[in-house]
Amino acid sequence: MKQKTLKPGLLYDGSQIQPMWAFQELGIKGSSIVTWIGPMDIHSQELIDYEDVGLEITSSEMVHFIIEHFDVQPADIRMCYHRQRLLVMMVKDLLEEIGIKASREGDDLYVGQGKLSVSIATCSVSSMKIHFALNLTSQGTPDDVETVGLKECSPALTSKDVRELSENISNKYTMEIADIEEDISKTCVF
Amino acid sequence: MKQKTLKPGLLYDGSQIQPMWAFQELGIKGSSIVTWIGPMDIHSQELIDYEDVGLEITSSEMVHFIIEHFDVQPADIRMCYHRQRLLVMMVKDLLEEIGIKASREGDDLYVGQGKLSVSIATCSVSSMKIHFALNLTSQGTPDDVETVGLKECSPALTSKDVRELSENISNKYTMEIADIEEDISKTCVF
Amino acid sequence: MKQKTLKPGLLYDGSQIQPMWAFQELGIKGSSIVTWIGPMDIHSQELIDYEDVGLEITSSEMVHFIIEHFDVQPADIRMCYHRQRLLVMMVKDLLEEIGIKASREGDDLYVGQGKLSVSIATCSVSSMKIHFALNLTSQGTPDDVETVGLKECSPALTSKDVRELSENISNKYTMEIADIEEDISKTCVF
Amino acid sequence: MKQKTLKPGLLYDGSQIQPMWAFQELGIKGSSIVTWIGPMDIHSQELIDYEDVGLEITSSEMVHFIIEHFDVQPADIRMCYHRQRLLVMMVKDLLEEIGIKASREGDDLYVGQGKLSVSIATCSVSSMKIHFALNLTSQGTPDDVETVGLKECSPALTSKDVRELSENISNKYTMEIADIEEDISKTCVF
Amino acid sequence: MKQKTLKPGLLYDGSQIQPMWAFQELGIKGSSIVTWIGPMDIHSQELIDYEDVGLEITSSEMVHFIIEHFDVQPADIRMCYHRQRLLVMMVKDLLEEIGIKASREGDDLYVGQGKLSVSIATCSVSSMKIHFALNLTSQGTPDDVETVGLKECSPALTSKDVRELSENISNKYTMEIADIEEDISKTCVF
Amino acid sequence: MKQKTLKPGLLYDGSQIQPMWAFQELGIKGSSIVTWIGPMDIHSQELIDYEDVGLEITSSEMVHFIIEHFDVQPADIRMCYHRQRLLVMMVKDLLEEIGIKASREGDDLYVGQGKLSVSIATCSVSSMKIHFALNLTSQGTPDDVETVGLKECSPALTSKDVRELSENISNKYTMEIADIEEDISKTCVF
Repeated sequence: MKQKTLKPGLLYDGSQIQPMWAFQELGIKGSSIVTWIGPMDIHSQELIDYEDVGLEITSSEMVHFIIEHFDVQPADIRMCYHRQRLLVMMVKDLLEEIGIKASREGDDLYVGQGKLSVSIATCSVSSMKIHFALNLTSQGTPDDVETVGLKECSPALTSKDVRELSENISNKYTMEIADIEEDISKTCVF
Repeated sequence: MKQKTLKPGLLYDGSQIQPMWAFQELGIKGSSIVTWIGPMDIHSQELIDYEDVGLEITSSEMVHFIIEHFDVQPADIRMCYHRQRLLVMMVKDLLEEIGIKASREGDDLYVGQGKLSVSIATCSVSSMKIHFALNLTSQGTPDDVETVGLKECSPALTSKDVRELSENISNKYTMEIADIEEDISKTCVF
Repeated sequence: MKQKTLKPGLLYDGSQIQPMWAFQELGIKGSSIVTWIGPMDIHSQELIDYEDVGLEITSSEMVHFIIEHFDVQPADIRMCYHRQRLLVMMVKDLLEEIGIKASREGDDLYVGQGKLSVSIATCSVSSMKIHFALNLTSQGTPDDVETVGLKECSPALTSKDVRELSENISNKYTMEIADIEEDISKTCVF
Repeated sequence: MKQKTLKPGLLYDGSQIQPMWAFQELGIKGSSIVTWIGPMDIHSQELIDYEDVGLEITSSEMVHFIIEHFDVQPADIRMCYHRQRLLVMMVKDLLEEIGIKASREGDDLYVGQGKLSVSIATCSVSSMKIHFALNLTSQGTPDDVETVGLKECSPALTSKDVRELSENISNKYTMEIADIEEDISKTCVF
Repeated sequence: MKQKTLKPGLLYDGSQIQPMWAFQELGIKGSSIVTWIGPMDIHSQELIDYEDVGLEITSSEMVHFIIEHFDVQPADIRMCYHRQRLLVMMVKDLLEEIGIKASREGDDLYVGQGKLSVSIATCSVSSMKIHFALNLTSQGTPDDVETVGLKECSPALTSKDVRELSENISNKYTMEIADIEEDISKTCVF
Repeated sequence: MKQKTLKPGLLYDGSQIQPMWAFQELGIKGSSIVTWIGPMDIHSQELIDYEDVGLEITSSEMVHFIIEHFDVQPADIRMCYHRQRLLVMMVKDLLEEIGIKASREGDDLYVGQGKLSVSIATCSVSSMKIHFALNLTSQGTPDDVETVGLKECSPALTSKDVRELSENISNKYTMEIADIEEDISKTCVF
């Protein structure tokens, strides 16, 4: 699984959740996790969570992760949502290591009452995709939802800390998936 | 997914990891999570983790969980190991809620240097099985591994607390799997 | 599996066969069977049976069933067509119980020479869909096909009878699928 | 799918449900349906329905069907139970054509209160198997179950009629599976 | 698997790689291999190999093969690429039998430095598709790629020879897939 | 995919085709291809090709390959036989490069009338296995089959040449499987 950190600034507009985005835009072949800091403003025609139809999904600054898996063929959205949950739980643990105590409900992280993250999983016939992002600030988020950003939780957090956090998340996720594959090959089946 | 708590005392000898155990021994049809408190002494012929061959796998008192899933057909050991990881991460969170701070490496939980848990996942053609257990004490565990038990981590822990913990784990796991299924049905695919 | 009966009148225009229709239009999450009485006029751009291209597919009044399954991941059109056949055979049996003797060819029901039903199955990556409908009258059906309606087969049939029939079909189908799942969990595999 | 009728007399002892039986005993390669008339006495070690453990499963004379499918890889017990249900429903229809009115509960056929049939489905990693059999007489069936045989339902039934019935069943089943495959290739998917 | 040879002349413009093309254009139901001689000029909106975006993909005269498989459900692009490789290797062997010594790199055939073939595999939820084509001449191929045609490799090659070659390829491929299915049904699994 | 060459001498007795052999005997985790030179004498209880029952399967000296794949879950014997065919075709090509012209029938290689190779594929729920071996000499092969060995085809062949050949085969196979995976991630699906 390839890991890549983009330079800050790319707007997440929902187009990045489409299959093969990493190959078409970044030339990455095979499974990958791409991370960057940037705003979010999802175009309504790119919405893939039917519960979000009609909602504003915006934020001024987030740490984004786009994951694509080609290992499971045909792609399986059930597997993809299991991996999304693993990712969210890992992020929760890594936040705790830097002093931010979050709670989890499904695929959402909260700090206190404030919603810290957004996430979705989807797939085409040949790949499984996950988007996960953490607010850096609550600026630019919808008025009707109480939100919170990492910088508000932990004012001393530097850009370098955020970058380190995002790369730790990518590493940990990559290693966990590899670790699961290893476990398969040491287990007797019936 | 059915949940059942057995009365204390059943020895985990490895036979419970076999497919259809819950139906054959307890009359439970369909996917289930069964929990109980009891010792562990795995018969060498019941060993399914090839890394454990030749090792002693014992403990005087543990909280056991045996999970069987029939929803994925044919059964998929990769999916099963993903669910095992979800379970371990949830247990870590629930332990923290009762004041026990554990760390995770793969499918193992540790408190300090002491190994707190054992776990394995496996499958037949038609079902996926997980065994997960937490030491209540470090008594009866192998001499060559540093272990720790919940009662040593939290001396005030009563039998009722342990039972509550185990049922919380069963509930939380059951709800998570159901929650993932719900997410599938609200997501646009490509 | 959720069951829902809509109030009469909704036109079946083919859009209801699209994945997630039940969630988007009716707010139903998860697998479901929805039934209602209404006319049919399939827009050519909604045609998914390539053998029907260029044909008129209309009827003034039918009992419709729209089924969506999320249990099999990734969705499998072969499984979906097996379930369609089970549905058609069950409907045949339930019609016989109310005195209407139909015969079956593939996924079509006939009374005498008259075609009584239409049906199609399809899928996306994440769900399997079935449309099945019985003519209540032969009015509004294409001129070039001999058709028949339930009310012509059984003139005494009241609206309440039709509603009862449709709910019996939904119940029976739901129970059959659940029954198959139960059988899996009692069977030894090799 | 190959069809074969064996000469009468073979005891069904449960060994025929094992994968590759048709190849090992009859030299048949690929998917097949084999039918014959013979007694049944299932050896306890050949029992694969865990609900039948401890029960006597015997009959003096039955029409047996052993089906093996290799088309779905890896084999899927859920699919196999769907095909079993299709088979049972088809048999019910074909019995009606020769004047025997049966009712169905799950995978069992009844005439009046008498149980007419037995059936099981199972699979290995590479094939799906179904056994289905109809009592010709109620002789030799367990005392604690009310049973009935085809010859008791329809005293005029000759051996030739039974053979014709069994071959009709094999034909119809084979054609139905082929018909489903054809339907797949004319259907637009999303 | 059905085999069909079309009369020469059909332009391969990329639309033929779409699922169900053989049914919609030729009325062929089920898995098939269709072959014909004709030019190639792929419309940019029909491009499905993202590495080819922006490239000219043309040739004046090629032997084309369009394969569609419905046997694997849901369709699996990994399986499809395995079959594509088998096809390419078989073509290489059959060319050698008529005196043309090609070498293979991935899914491309070369004679000397000249690229002889193009190929792609893809799938929808319900079918797997392969396009493979051999240049008959290097005329009309892109200027920036060194290409070669069968007629340049083997000047004595008649139209009849080419047709025979294409039908041999179709035969051989069809038989190989059938042969693999047979092997499954004679093999013990664990 | 891991590659390993064992030192010469290990008897292939059929036990090496069992799932997890590479992990249990060699400590190799994950997908692998293992090669060595040694005799063959398959114990009848290790026979997994039902067509070979009752036959003597022996040879004094062969180059063996044991492949295990964990990437496809659940394991799929159809996929496994496709990979076996790819392997056999690649070996044929590599033999030609060292001047040995073989022909292929299914999964067998011949030089003239002499059978040069043996091969089988199988799987458990979690892994796919292939055994393939080339005779180095025809000594020790069954009397009732005409066989040939590499050393008889090419008398100048040294042990070093054989080792190089076997490692070339392992490399080429490993690269082909990786290449197929890459192709998946550059292809648009429908």
